[in-house]
Parts: sequence; C-alpha cells; structure tokens
Amino acid sequence: MTFSQESMPDPMAEAPVFADIEAAAERLAGWAVATPLLNPPALDRKLGGRILLKAETLQRTGSFKFRGAFNRISLIPEAERGAGVVAYSSGNHAQGVAAAAALLGVPAAIVMPNDAPAIKVANTRGYGAEVVLYDRATENREAIGAALSAERGATLVRPFDDPGVIAGQGTCGLEIAQQAAARGFEIDALMVCCGGGGLTAGCALAMAELSPKTQVYTVEPAGFDDTRRSLAEGARVENDPAARSFCDALLAPTPGELTFPINRRLLAGGFAVSDAEVRAAMDYAFRTLKLVIEPGGAVALAALLAGRLETRGKTVALTLSGGNVDPKNYREMLAAEASAPA
Amino acid sequence: MTFSQESMPDPMAEAPVFADIEAAAERLAGWAVATPLLNPPALDRKLGGRILLKAETLQRTGSFKFRGAFNRISLIPEAERGAGVVAYSSGNHAQGVAAAAALLGVPAAIVMPNDAPAIKVANTRGYGAEVVLYDRATENREAIGAALSAERGATLVRPFDDPGVIAGQGTCGLEIAQQAAARGFEIDALMVCCGGGGLTAGCALAMAELSPKTQVYTVEPAGFDDTRRSLAEGARVENDPAARSFCDALLAPTPGELTFPINRRLLAGGFAVSDAEVRAAMDYAFRTLKLVIEPGGAVALAALLAGRLETRGKTVALTLSGGNVDPKNYREMLAAEASAPA
Repeated sequence: MTFSQESMPDPMAEAPVFADIEAAAERLAGWAVATPLLNPPALDRKLGGRILLKAETLQRTGSFKFRGAFNRISLIPEAERGAGVVAYSSGNHAQGVAAAAALLGVPAAIVMPNDAPAIKVANTRGYGAEVVLYDRATENREAIGAALSAERGATLVRPFDDPGVIAGQGTCGLEIAQQAAARGFEIDALMVCCGGGGLTAGCALAMAELSPKTQVYTVEPAGFDDTRRSLAEGARVENDPAARSFCDALLAPTPGELTFPINRRLLAGGFAVSDAEVRAAMDYAFRTLKLVIEPGGAVALAALLAGRLETRGKTVALTLSGGNVDPKNYREMLAAEASAPA
Repeated sequence: MTFSQESMPDPMAEAPVFADIEAAAERLAGWAVATPLLNPPALDRKLGGRILLKAETLQRTGSFKFRGAFNRISLIPEAERGAGVVAYSSGNHAQGVAAAAALLGVPAAIVMPNDAPAIKVANTRGYGAEVVLYDRATENREAIGAALSAERGATLVRPFDDPGVIAGQGTCGLEIAQQAAARGFEIDALMVCCGGGGLTAGCALAMAELSPKTQVYTVEPAGFDDTRRSLAEGARVENDPAARSFCDALLAPTPGELTFPINRRLLAGGFAVSDAEVRAAMDYAFRTLKLVIEPGGAVALAALLAGRLETRGKTVALTLSGGNVDPKNYREMLAAEASAPA
C-alpha cells in the first residue's frame, strides 16, 4: 500500500514510492517553479563532461524545501488545517513551510536556532510565519517542536523524515530526469546535496524509476558526512557533536529513519567536501556561473570541482539546492577567494 | 535586399531585418546558450504583474554579447579569417568576441580601457585573445581599433554598429518571444538594457515580427541616457562627457548610426535609472532572485523596481544582460545595501 491523501499520515509507517512523487508533481504544478536544468559551457569545458545543474536556488523561497513543504501541507485534511503547522529548521525548511503554509492559508509556527542566518529568519517572518527561537547548544528543537504542536493541535512538518516531504522533494529528481530526457541526455551520475537525506531519497526514487542506470550519490560537508559513513557501514551512524561546518543547511546529526533505508537501497555512495572546497565552489559560481549559492547548496558542485568523481566524457547532474546566504557571509567568501591563489 | 553571408558586409550600408535574426539563430544553435526566461514568483508578487527575466547572465561569457560576436565572426569569409579580428570594448563585447573567435579558430586582438573591471580583462585573456590596453581619458578606442585592423588586415568587429552584430543580439529577442509564446504569455512591454543600442535594435526587430503589440523600451544609466533623449528629440544626441556611472557596460557616448534609426522606428520610449537604483536592483537580485548581475545588466530590473513602468496586471519582460562584476565591486554593493534602510 502506498502513502495517500486519504490515510492519516504516520511518517514512520510507510516509505513513499514513485507514484507519490508523481502525485506531488501534480499538486505542485503552478505553485513550485520548474527550475531550469542548466548546462554552462564553461563548466563542461572545465570538467571535460556534460554537467547539468538543477538550479533550485531559483525555486520559490530560494531552495528545494518549498517542494516538500507544499506537498506535505497539501496532504493535511481540511478539518485539521486551522490548527496550523509547526516546523523546526535552520532556515530553508522554515522558509519552505512558511511560504507553503501562507499560500495554502494555514497558520505556521517555525522553531529556528538563534544563530540561523539572519536572512533566513527575516524571510521566514516575511512569509507571515511566527518564529520561535531556541539555543542550539542547550535546547532540543525536536522537543520544542513536539511540545508546540501538541499544545496547539498543529501538524508537525518534519524536515525530512516524512513520506509527504520526501515525495515533494522527489519532484526535483523527476524534473531532472524529464528535462535531461527532453534534450536527449542520459545521466550517468547524479550528485545530491545531503543533510537529513530527504532530497536525496526523493531524487533516488525518481531516478530509479525514470533513469535506472543513473548512479546517485550524496555530497555532505566533512564532519557531517553521516550518510556517506552510514552507507559504507550499512547502518545509521552519528556525526561527532564537536564537528563544525559553515554549511548551515546540512548539519543534521544522523540520517533519517525513513530516508536512510531508501538511500541505502538506491545509492551508489557518498562524498564529503571541506569548507574550503565549498567556498571555492561558491566563488566559481559567482565568477563564472553568475549564480548565488549558499554553502549547503554548493557541496555537490564543490565535489565535482574538487575531482571527487570522474566526469570526463560523462553526463553528470547535480543539485544546487539553495541560495539563502547572508550578504555578510557572502562578502567574506568573496574576500577570502579574492586573496587566495588562483 | 537583406544583409547576407555572400555580400561583403559594410556595416553602414544596410540595416538588418528579421530574416537576418533567423539566420543568426541557426548559426548560433549549439553554440550560444538558450538562456532561460525566468518568472520568479517573488517578483511577480512584488510588482503585481507577470515579470519575465531573460537571464543573459547565464549566457556563454556571462553576457548577451557572445551572440552578436559569434554571428558577426561567422560571416567573415574563410579567406579573411586568418588575419583575425579586432574589437574595442569595456569588457563584455571583448569577452564575447574573444570566446567566439576562439571557437571559430580566428585570432583576436581586443582594445580595452585600462580601467575596465579586472574580471573582464582576465576573462578576455582567458579566452586566448591578445589584450591591448588604452587610456580612456586621453586615447580614442575607435582610432586604435581602426589602426590595428588596418595594420593586420583584420576584420573590425564593432560593438553595436554592425548589421551582423545587431542580428546576433536579436536572437535574444527571438528567444524571449518564442519562450513567452510557448507558455501562452503575451508580452505587454519589454525593457532592454541599452548602451549603443545593438541589443535593443535586435530585440525590437524580433518583437516587431513575432509580438508586434509589445512596447519596447530602453533603460540606461542616468547621465548616459542618450538613447532616451534621442528618442524624445528624434535625433541622435550625445552624453555630457563629464557624466559618470558605475554601469561600466553602458557608457557609449551616443546612439549608434545603424542602431538609432531602427530604435527610433520601433521603440515606445526610454527610461533612465540612478546608480543607487541599480545597486538596489543588484541587491534584490542577490537576496531574492539568487542571480549575480553586473551594474549595466541590472538597469532594466532597476527601472521596474523603481516604478518607472506600470506593471500591475501586465506581462513585462526584461533583459538581465550581463553578470561580469568584479568581486570587489560586488562586496562594496552588498556592504552598502546591508547598511541601507530596508
């Protein structure tokens, strides 16, 4: 049995299947942006292959997260919508939920860390959501989110461990497969920016159906490469709590309970990149691609630019999963790269 | 008679017509990027209309100039290609000519001002062209370019006053009309970033054929709004030599001899924007659109954000004509906007 609108969604009960992604695509039509699959000649030349960039930076709210949020909230029965939704997020899921809830006329409260990028907090409020700040070091966002949703009778919209969210993110992979096919390209590999694994799982489900020869990989920040290590070990492992990265969107401590079984079944492996490699990718995107990418959205590009995967003669797609970077951080990135050796 | 590959092109002799744009589109297929026509929901909401962005920032070499350069160089008879091409440009035409020449196996020498953005000089050299620097205050680039081409027997590729260049830039307008039509949109107005008027003239020719109800406007930097004033007066006027603007791509002193008659015949009018309005547009593009736009490429967006044209209930297209901005200048723009009132 597949997850459907009629059933009361229990996130842990059932994994989404391809039909859920197709249904999500229908719900999202006219709401989400069908973002372009770019193929910059300069990048092809640099890497010696055909490189396809899924520019989710151009998605509504500046990241792919709108897809999953809109699909999940659309699945809430009419009678329960008035009580609203609650979400916890470092920022992109927050904005996705806030914007989707506003479009669907559902009240939203978002639990965000007090050190989240100011642009993400401001944008979340800008979409009309209530923002509840917490201290990442001393408080637990899951507990705050659970308490808030219980108190209000609101629906908790998890950032990745929810079949409706995974199916929504899967529409990104669906579009990649369809856009590549429309141009006659067969994708050898797809590199997905990975936090909790929702975008990865959704894209992997779409590729398994539409482009089964495509090898799907995760890319994570070094120190937060829990999915890469979990795939290698065959079981979910956690990141060292002392790890730090400036990829604020990808700091999930461990693969999702729902996402990992999908990813373990469908993925070819995972890669990790350093903050310096991510900065270099953001700088390349600025100078050559003319795209603003946030750190977490640049990890897959960083992996290719750093030579993690052989691209010569291959068609390789990747997600540019978000662009919500603070002007201050962007200025610092540009300054650092300007003084770095070429 | 229309301009064709067989005739020896005398730039002043004949104005291009729509068939030249169609021929240019065939030459450019597979070489130029068919850049996306973006329709960001956030901008629609902000301006109360349907706003279509032709993202030539994503074009090969980071601006629309590749189109005209590639088309013009393709028109050089085989026997004359060995002597090479010469061009003068503040930067985007330089890069367009350098890249097109390299792809077509033609040597290129580019005359550039010694105060051109470093990224443009570096990129021009990166495409394999010889760069000849001159002093904008004391030397004349046209004279240097003419002397150099005479000395070498090279073909001078003018930045805008050339029917082959205008026809090439017109492929941008052709794509705008086709991409809008494919989605069922009728464009009420098209705002084109304008220096010498080549992109404008090309786009106006394309719209006159494919979307004759579309009103086409130029947008220029204040102080360099020679086309706006010339349209109003019905004759070519010059800018005050003392005028200054940070829109380095749009500092042509007067409308082109070939472009102005086309623009006078086909345009609805012109607008001028201040440097402060351009900075605000670049900042908006960074924060919300996630696109890197250079000053000269942001003037049309600036005009809409500043309310120059009524957009409520209208479908308005505009060019984002280039993205080649120095990291240093971009940092300063972000710093200025970050401290400005919201």
